[in-house]
Amino acid sequence: MRRAVAGQGTARSPRQGRPTLEEVAERAGVSRATVSRVVNGQTTVAEDLRRAVEAAAAELGYVPHAAARSLVTHRTDSVALILPESPNRVFSDDQFFPSVIRGVAGELDAAGKLLVLLTTGSAEARSRAERYAVGGHVDGVMFASLHDADLLPELMLRRGVPVVCNGLPHLSAPCIDVDHESGVEAAVRYLLAQGRRRIATVAGPQDMVAGRTRLDAYRQTLAEADRRAIIAVGDFTAESGHAGMRQLLADEPEIDAVFVASDLMAHGALQALREAGRRVPEDVAVVGFDDIALASYCDPPLTTVRQPIAEIGRSMARTMLRLLDGLEVEPLTILPTELVVRESA
Amino acid sequence: MRRAVAGQGTARSPRQGRPTLEEVAERAGVSRATVSRVVNGQTTVAEDLRRAVEAAAAELGYVPHAAARSLVTHRTDSVALILPESPNRVFSDDQFFPSVIRGVAGELDAAGKLLVLLTTGSAEARSRAERYAVGGHVDGVMFASLHDADLLPELMLRRGVPVVCNGLPHLSAPCIDVDHESGVEAAVRYLLAQGRRRIATVAGPQDMVAGRTRLDAYRQTLAEADRRAIIAVGDFTAESGHAGMRQLLADEPEIDAVFVASDLMAHGALQALREAGRRVPEDVAVVGFDDIALASYCDPPLTTVRQPIAEIGRSMARTMLRLLDGLEVEPLTILPTELVVRESA
Repeated sequence: MRRAVAGQGTARSPRQGRPTLEEVAERAGVSRATVSRVVNGQTTVAEDLRRAVEAAAAELGYVPHAAARSLVTHRTDSVALILPESPNRVFSDDQFFPSVIRGVAGELDAAGKLLVLLTTGSAEARSRAERYAVGGHVDGVMFASLHDADLLPELMLRRGVPVVCNGLPHLSAPCIDVDHESGVEAAVRYLLAQGRRRIATVAGPQDMVAGRTRLDAYRQTLAEADRRAIIAVGDFTAESGHAGMRQLLADEPEIDAVFVASDLMAHGALQALREAGRRVPEDVAVVGFDDIALASYCDPPLTTVRQPIAEIGRSMARTMLRLLDGLEVEPLTILPTELVVRESA
Repeated sequence: MRRAVAGQGTARSPRQGRPTLEEVAERAGVSRATVSRVVNGQTTVAEDLRRAVEAAAAELGYVPHAAARSLVTHRTDSVALILPESPNRVFSDDQFFPSVIRGVAGELDAAGKLLVLLTTGSAEARSRAERYAVGGHVDGVMFASLHDADLLPELMLRRGVPVVCNGLPHLSAPCIDVDHESGVEAAVRYLLAQGRRRIATVAGPQDMVAGRTRLDAYRQTLAEADRRAIIAVGDFTAESGHAGMRQLLADEPEIDAVFVASDLMAHGALQALREAGRRVPEDVAVVGFDDIALASYCDPPLTTVRQPIAEIGRSMARTMLRLLDGLEVEPLTILPTELVVRESA
């Protein structure tokens, strides 16, 4: 016997704890099994029964326990974006990760998916993120700006978690990256065309594709012009750019230009040049890489290689959505870079 | 019959998909039910059987499906921090949310919990976050800087999700906030003591405790000194501070000081004063609220009311950890504020 579904106006006092499936069944006047079948999205339930269950569930504020539902559907309608650095680094003066997040968020939002942000700056944090993703709390995982030694993407892939990455093109997962080589080549050729002769670099971390590839392209372009490489290595932070620039000035006081492999490092390098009494660009020309907002309000505004950071995020999210829909995806997407000339070179 | 557990050195090729419970049972030489009991943390399993299952699970890289496990334990060892604004606002030039995140992350990390970051800047996003939290994918939810009309904390409370909040002291959940009144009173008294006579304010959003309380304290302190309130209202963004300052200058050209209810708004107000040819602090003294990093590199560096933003995050996380452990918690924690004098006033 089904009872009529009570109207929306029925008074109901706030209560603690989730309404149970049994309460929904009682309110709808159907069996527990029928509620279970509706909740689990089975299509074999008669239309009027389904409507009665949905009305009762809405009235009681019942949301099926995802743990129970996901045993059937294995879907959470959420996707994780992993930022493989410490929270102190991601949520400070960095502007790369926030741009990636905005790009990812826009696409997932449009697709009705929840974005779950996680940071994995330590072995313990990686292990917690692994258990969470492998445990079925998200439908897939995207990684921004990976380090070579990070095993997390591979571990998740092996356990059947859909993965999209940025920074590890050798992985058997779709990868979104940018054309580092063309950007760096344009930067170094521009400095050569300006008559600069001793062009140094503050390179990025050598355990990352972005760090290695930019250094290789710098070397290669200088070698083609019969020029010698002058190298310091940083880790993409402002502090390391400052230290790298000081080291270059100590090693080779006669340098007249520097390609710095990230804008945040370039910001630190500009400070070191100011402290050393070198004028930019008169004494030393400076070119960065990224074109984050900081680049345009540096003093002087920074000539830099623009990479489409938000588009990396958008592209990762679109690729993930296709993976989740079982559609074909490009194994490797390379986005363009371009030189943006301002006042520092 | 139990078989010996194979050694760690056994070669095993990478595989797609999660190892199943059946595979663990076969490897350990025990029944599926025994594996299930071990995985679900039941204490009735003989010690040698439990060891065999754990060894087999470790060897195969088996992680129990959290959906299955959480039906028993209802724990995910993760806690959500909800930032109730759009990703474009949270991940841009804002420095409040990043500080809260760093504070929360430090405490959760030390406790071995995963921090899950969610933004809820739209009705759809709130609805997705609600389903996710109510569905058991996190053990509890913290809210930073809530708006009055946000029903999400109440909805989650009703469904049994542990909640800690910042910004809604009337909620039946522990709340962490700061002493807005004392900070604003110190700021306005300081301006009065400097001989300022026409002290305006750019207030924060009036649908938030932080916006209303700071405006009330400004009014109250001026009234005690027999001074008139001169008010514009912003929404804590730099743009709204710029617009609010322009409006104040148009309404009352003779103002000689302004208390701006957030540093980001103060940054916009400084720009509007520059554009109007007013010198700071000579013509117009400016005091902000927050003491984010921006305050010290504003031009001129900003006199402001410091609130311990990272400590809000740490305190929220500590309170959540106590809630999850079933310990008593303070219903309301009020952190101190103090005036920091720099050059703008």
